[in-house]
Amino acid sequence: VSRDTIEALGDIVGHDGLIVDPALMQPYLSDWRDRFHGRALAVVRPRSTAEVARVVEHCVAAGIAMVPQGGNTGLAAGATPVGLERAVVINTSRMRAVRNIDAAAGTIAVESGCVLSDVQAAARQAGRYFPLSLAAEGSAQIGGLISTNAGGTAVLRYGSMRALVLGLEVVLPDGSVLNGMRTLRKDNAGFDWKQWFIGAEGTLGIVTAAVLRLFPAQHTIRTALFSLPTIEDAMRAFAAVESALGELLVAAEIIPDIAVEMRARFHPSEAFPAPRDGWYLLAEATSALSGLEDQIDAVLLDIVEAGIAKGCTVANNPAQREAIWAWRETITESERRFGTSAKHDVSVPVSAVVPFVEEAGAAVAAAFPSTTVVAFGHAGDGNIHFNVVIPQQESIAAEDVNVLVHRIVAAYGGSITAEHGIGRYRRDELPAHRSEAEMSAMRALKQALDPRGLMNPGAVL
Amino acid sequence: VSRDTIEALGDIVGHDGLIVDPALMQPYLSDWRDRFHGRALAVVRPRSTAEVARVVEHCVAAGIAMVPQGGNTGLAAGATPVGLERAVVINTSRMRAVRNIDAAAGTIAVESGCVLSDVQAAARQAGRYFPLSLAAEGSAQIGGLISTNAGGTAVLRYGSMRALVLGLEVVLPDGSVLNGMRTLRKDNAGFDWKQWFIGAEGTLGIVTAAVLRLFPAQHTIRTALFSLPTIEDAMRAFAAVESALGELLVAAEIIPDIAVEMRARFHPSEAFPAPRDGWYLLAEATSALSGLEDQIDAVLLDIVEAGIAKGCTVANNPAQREAIWAWRETITESERRFGTSAKHDVSVPVSAVVPFVEEAGAAVAAAFPSTTVVAFGHAGDGNIHFNVVIPQQESIAAEDVNVLVHRIVAAYGGSITAEHGIGRYRRDELPAHRSEAEMSAMRALKQALDPRGLMNPGAVL
Repeated sequence: VSRDTIEALGDIVGHDGLIVDPALMQPYLSDWRDRFHGRALAVVRPRSTAEVARVVEHCVAAGIAMVPQGGNTGLAAGATPVGLERAVVINTSRMRAVRNIDAAAGTIAVESGCVLSDVQAAARQAGRYFPLSLAAEGSAQIGGLISTNAGGTAVLRYGSMRALVLGLEVVLPDGSVLNGMRTLRKDNAGFDWKQWFIGAEGTLGIVTAAVLRLFPAQHTIRTALFSLPTIEDAMRAFAAVESALGELLVAAEIIPDIAVEMRARFHPSEAFPAPRDGWYLLAEATSALSGLEDQIDAVLLDIVEAGIAKGCTVANNPAQREAIWAWRETITESERRFGTSAKHDVSVPVSAVVPFVEEAGAAVAAAFPSTTVVAFGHAGDGNIHFNVVIPQQESIAAEDVNVLVHRIVAAYGGSITAEHGIGRYRRDELPAHRSEAEMSAMRALKQALDPRGLMNPGAVL
Repeated sequence: VSRDTIEALGDIVGHDGLIVDPALMQPYLSDWRDRFHGRALAVVRPRSTAEVARVVEHCVAAGIAMVPQGGNTGLAAGATPVGLERAVVINTSRMRAVRNIDAAAGTIAVESGCVLSDVQAAARQAGRYFPLSLAAEGSAQIGGLISTNAGGTAVLRYGSMRALVLGLEVVLPDGSVLNGMRTLRKDNAGFDWKQWFIGAEGTLGIVTAAVLRLFPAQHTIRTALFSLPTIEDAMRAFAAVESALGELLVAAEIIPDIAVEMRARFHPSEAFPAPRDGWYLLAEATSALSGLEDQIDAVLLDIVEAGIAKGCTVANNPAQREAIWAWRETITESERRFGTSAKHDVSVPVSAVVPFVEEAGAAVAAAFPSTTVVAFGHAGDGNIHFNVVIPQQESIAAEDVNVLVHRIVAAYGGSITAEHGIGRYRRDELPAHRSEAEMSAMRALKQALDPRGLMNPGAVL
């Protein structure tokens, strides 16, 4: 690829938007966990949809592959140009305008480079609420969150990102622009093409903007931490809370005591906010209606009085709430002190969470006796982060643990990636978990929209 | 097409499943409102997914077009073989098994011929709740409801059918079967191909089964009818109720007094359950949590005390609730006594409901002074059924009214079909409301999955 060809990209995006210096490119060529590394001819940072379209046209004409990238917080190397010879990274960080906010309609139109926490703040400022929330919200961008159909802690009530997208703007692999920035709650006029791109991990086009749903602000917030002897009790408590609180329930996370133990070892001064037991269930219920605290607490107390949970701590202020959530959010961080983790972002039917965790736990213990299983997460929607901590001195390959765990996931009709996506990391595993007919249907859409295969090649398919 | 070719379909589905007698075929060749009429070589009624696949293979080999049909309650002729020369209707009525119900996971797996009210009943029997609800629920089938991404009265909280589908099984236009009958709440493994078929109106394949989401049973139910001077007041009342009740709000329907007047004329003995005024807002809030009646009523009362509504009637028992809903559900029926209706199933951003109804109402009154506008429906999600009643003696063409109303819809960034779909009825209008890039993307998927164009030709595209 000639130098002129690359320099021409600077003519499109401005020369401050073109990075070719290898040192300056580095942050864009590896993922934030520093597990995947790629290379690129350049990093291109367009400022507008029109610039994205021109960049794509230019790359197509030159036969250069394109890797769309947002906040680069993904966990599956979907935005890292691993193993590509002639590729550029198209990073959307400079496209961060809030195009419009309509509080009455409950919609916000944003460019794909908007950071999630900024969208949350804009919604709050307009007296509304944007519910998507996840650990990387301070840097994850809307385009990437849409392209990976991000999940997080509020999926139980609000669904994944797909459920929050009303309108979409996409630059196709040929540089044409699909403008579907509609702000409608209901629209059945023709195929709903925006669905194709949500969760497609940038392989079908580049998301440049979206219209998102906003919700009423929440006035009642109750966060509870139950202590329970077994995971079975934790899921019984979840079932009881779910059927009694229904739509009020926003989050239901399980935590094994080993995760508490790991954190407590290095933070001895921090008191765990509930009686210690084998498992914990973090349940959060909220409502736009104010004053429901007593009625929610009565339901929580019932779980204890019915003998399902040994105890339950309810947060009475934001600081207590944060203290409870901290024990959930720092699990991955705590694990790191005990070794490297073979991670599994898996889901099973909610009714199979208990047998899955027990069977996979036993299988891992038998095959890799030196490891420690830390299975936690969004149990309310069946999404378990099944992490296997491998002590530093052991030479167990994470891939071998993956194979074992994913086989059991498949046996329960589960998914090997509930919310992180396939990217390049799980690509070779996908065909084992989808029928040939399904793979062929996916390839048919890819071929129809990207016949030259230049849009994020090597990801997903 | 030879007689043998048709008879061979009977070998696949059983000869009681093949209808060739023109008189017996009639109910399948016209829509239930008797507005569209088509013709077919046969009506085929398979009993299983395997039979659907064999029927499709057979039709493809013979070059026969296929029109998938469920309960035949559609309003856009998507399931009526209008204008087709060599076609069969593939009706799924005999595929009505509930394959599985998992109350703990909140999932039900059903065949596409299951009638909606049967799914609701099965959920109820399992202690769960399936929220999709619409006028035709006693005959509409799941396959058709998925293929049209049906809406109804509970979209405000639960979304349209798309939000309720977890898994899907589809027979593709080449007879191969895509089996995605997964029961997962979160799954990001590869493209989510089931989204392509939801709302595609049977043009990309035949939905043969689905896994649907079930919800906790609702224990608090409050149904209110507000009386208000203007539509602006009605939408102000909606905004106040929505921000105070948030996720509890299931339905918010507006009704103009003219609709009450029309019904009252022919049902003089039935008392309207609220003080008469210019407009009415029917709001329904429910919760899995029991005992929220007083808190909800306090919010409703606030609307009256704030002077937004003149009065508010709240149902205190199921009979009163039904009496309120009856005034909403019989509007179309009442209209018929006053003429024929030029109907518009349109949506606009929620914040544009008032200006849209006012502008379109004024435009219709100016252009067609003898008509009466009855604009009602799901105002909470921006979906207005904007019906224009044309007196019997007038020779106004519904199409002329459509053109006028849809032009105003487009100016407000709205949709010409919020929940009924395009079918064959609105097909020629679609290109005026979608960009050429969008039409071309839709055609690309159609071409990729149905290159011979035999699957429901003439619908949507």
